Amino acid sequence: MNQTARLQTFSDGIFAIAATLLILDVQLPENGDSLVHQLLHLWPSYGAYAISFVTIGIMWINHHAIFEQINRINRTFLVINIFFLLVIAFIPFPTRVLAEHLHGDARTAAFFYGLTNVMMAATYGALWFYAAHDNRLIAPYADPRMVSGISRAFRPGIPIYAVATLSALLSAWLAVALFAAIALFYVLESSLFGRSF
Amino acid sequence: MNQTARLQTFSDGIFAIAATLLILDVQLPENGDSLVHQLLHLWPSYGAYAISFVTIGIMWINHHAIFEQINRINRTFLVINIFFLLVIAFIPFPTRVLAEHLHGDARTAAFFYGLTNVMMAATYGALWFYAAHDNRLIAPYADPRMVSGISRAFRPGIPIYAVATLSALLSAWLAVALFAAIALFYVLESSLFGRSF
Amino acid sequence: MNQTARLQTFSDGIFAIAATLLILDVQLPENGDSLVHQLLHLWPSYGAYAISFVTIGIMWINHHAIFEQINRINRTFLVINIFFLLVIAFIPFPTRVLAEHLHGDARTAAFFYGLTNVMMAATYGALWFYAAHDNRLIAPYADPRMVSGISRAFRPGIPIYAVATLSALLSAWLAVALFAAIALFYVLESSLFGRSF
Amino acid sequence: MNQTARLQTFSDGIFAIAATLLILDVQLPENGDSLVHQLLHLWPSYGAYAISFVTIGIMWINHHAIFEQINRINRTFLVINIFFLLVIAFIPFPTRVLAEHLHGDARTAAFFYGLTNVMMAATYGALWFYAAHDNRLIAPYADPRMVSGISRAFRPGIPIYAVATLSALLSAWLAVALFAAIALFYVLESSLFGRSF
Repeated sequence: MNQTARLQTFSDGIFAIAATLLILDVQLPENGDSLVHQLLHLWPSYGAYAISFVTIGIMWINHHAIFEQINRINRTFLVINIFFLLVIAFIPFPTRVLAEHLHGDARTAAFFYGLTNVMMAATYGALWFYAAHDNRLIAPYADPRMVSGISRAFRPGIPIYAVATLSALLSAWLAVALFAAIALFYVLESSLFGRSF
Repeated sequence: MNQTARLQTFSDGIFAIAATLLILDVQLPENGDSLVHQLLHLWPSYGAYAISFVTIGIMWINHHAIFEQINRINRTFLVINIFFLLVIAFIPFPTRVLAEHLHGDARTAAFFYGLTNVMMAATYGALWFYAAHDNRLIAPYADPRMVSGISRAFRPGIPIYAVATLSALLSAWLAVALFAAIALFYVLESSLFGRSF
Repeated sequence: MNQTARLQTFSDGIFAIAATLLILDVQLPENGDSLVHQLLHLWPSYGAYAISFVTIGIMWINHHAIFEQINRINRTFLVINIFFLLVIAFIPFPTRVLAEHLHGDARTAAFFYGLTNVMMAATYGALWFYAAHDNRLIAPYADPRMVSGISRAFRPGIPIYAVATLSALLSAWLAVALFAAIALFYVLESSLFGRSF
Repeated sequence: MNQTARLQTFSDGIFAIAATLLILDVQLPENGDSLVHQLLHLWPSYGAYAISFVTIGIMWINHHAIFEQINRINRTFLVINIFFLLVIAFIPFPTRVLAEHLHGDARTAAFFYGLTNVMMAATYGALWFYAAHDNRLIAPYADPRMVSGISRAFRPGIPIYAVATLSALLSAWLAVALFAAIALFYVLESSLFGRSF
């Protein structure tokens, strides 16, 4: 099994497990409400589950687009990838915090959730730009327009998530709407990475 | 590693994790009963575990039959697959709700469980018909009779699960019996997908 | 990706997740003891963790020995495999029950643990004998002595686990010692499956 | 699928799941503090999560370096690998103990955490030296300098972790600093394994 394949398999494992563990934090409150009400009142949990699941799913899709341009790895790249995966695997925690505090200190919860997204964008950007710098790990058969397209797509990542995170200080709902919009945008956006298929 | 293989590996990971996480929701009640009674009274949990595990297993088998007919993917297909996996990974939650409320508000719990199955059938159907429409992603070597056989097998999915779900409004036991019967039917049914081996 | 490979990947996923989830049930009691005492008094949990982890590990090794003799699968085999995996994924529950009740109703807990092992041996045997009957799924290049060696190794599985399970009615400690001995035996035993490497 | 590949896939699954499960033990305390304070006071949990995640990640990278030198396995190697994975999958437990007791009986918690690391180094060393002894499982195409480089890198493993563990008897903070330093050292150190890419 070559090294690039093994890195992808390991990373896919982390993506898949982090996404699937999200459901463990969707839990019925132990209060006296009827089951119907309990299930309906859990909507912040369903929403946080969906946003985080789709976000991780999109990260996985893009990870997979990156690896079409790369045909070798080195130890530094492996280490950056581990720090990126450390952030991905962390996502279930701020997701739970957000779901449980949307009716409490929602601004803190949304800010914390956003901070994790900023960290994710930062480590993900580091991963890509390390590989793309001077075509360090880029495959000879890669299409230069694809490579620069991916770089263009990565550049706004940190600022976009930073703005959404800061917006949490004004309003948690605004921030959550922005997180959902960013996830949706990456779902719909297909011109940058999409040509790779 | 080609893209179709990586998509299958990622999906298999979600299937495997969602199925295995089901066991975390089988828990002894903390009451004063003897251990023998506690273990016997957990039968709704064992039943819900088995139905959901087999349902996810069947979904996995069929996912794998689909991919024998497909030899390429695109971004839209990837995104539909993520929404399908989002529903698969959600299954442990309604399974727990069903197991814990079979002696309480069983109809609500069974209805909620059924709703998840309808969502699963809907996103699964969307995945297949997106690929099969005008042979969009169908491999040139695919057998047209297999392809139309799979389409025939998918069509009743939503109505069948919808009927089982609505039956929960009459009787939770009827609904659970139907969920088990549907799982069993798909286990036994081997003429449609079965020829692919 | 061929079907046999995908079945192995999915099964390996279940084995790996079930084994790793075992640790979630090793938990400090919430009593007033010092941490040293709490950690020392957890030895039934460590023991149950180790026995179950090694048992699952051995099942994985043997699954992998089986697949060296098989070069095709069919739907019935897939379904039997799902029921086998259903039992494997169930193991964390009786493991937790055993660890938590070794100082309580230990005989019931050990009997329940044993029952799961009997189910495991039964579904595993069904999987192998379905494949081996009339060489149904056996590869043309398989060594007949290996195939009959594996059959010989499977035959005592159910009786051995049944005896260990029944012994729990006399003494939980005897049963646990037998479970550990069986796991150890399969670890040491290398003549039957071992030649396949 | 060849045996070495399947062993790597299974091991990668355990590494990935153990690393991802770590997040389940990062939990908000249920006290009356404000959410900001709760999130800030969780820093021992974040730290323990990061150290353990990076440690497991490094173990994975090295596992992958080992397998570049090996081209066959046998049953004994498989069994040693299962005991090594048993220790890897155990890591979430001492991590939780460490995070929860840094403000309590920190020395016991750090000592227990260190003990797990010593076990990890011991089983990992056993795995490598079993393979490397007389080139038992070493590929003919392996570079002898790489093989002896890996052996040199493994030798100090047990003593280093043993010293860090014993230091916990003096001061938990010293021990934790050493655990972090060892993880960091292995991250930075690139001369021994690093040439393999």
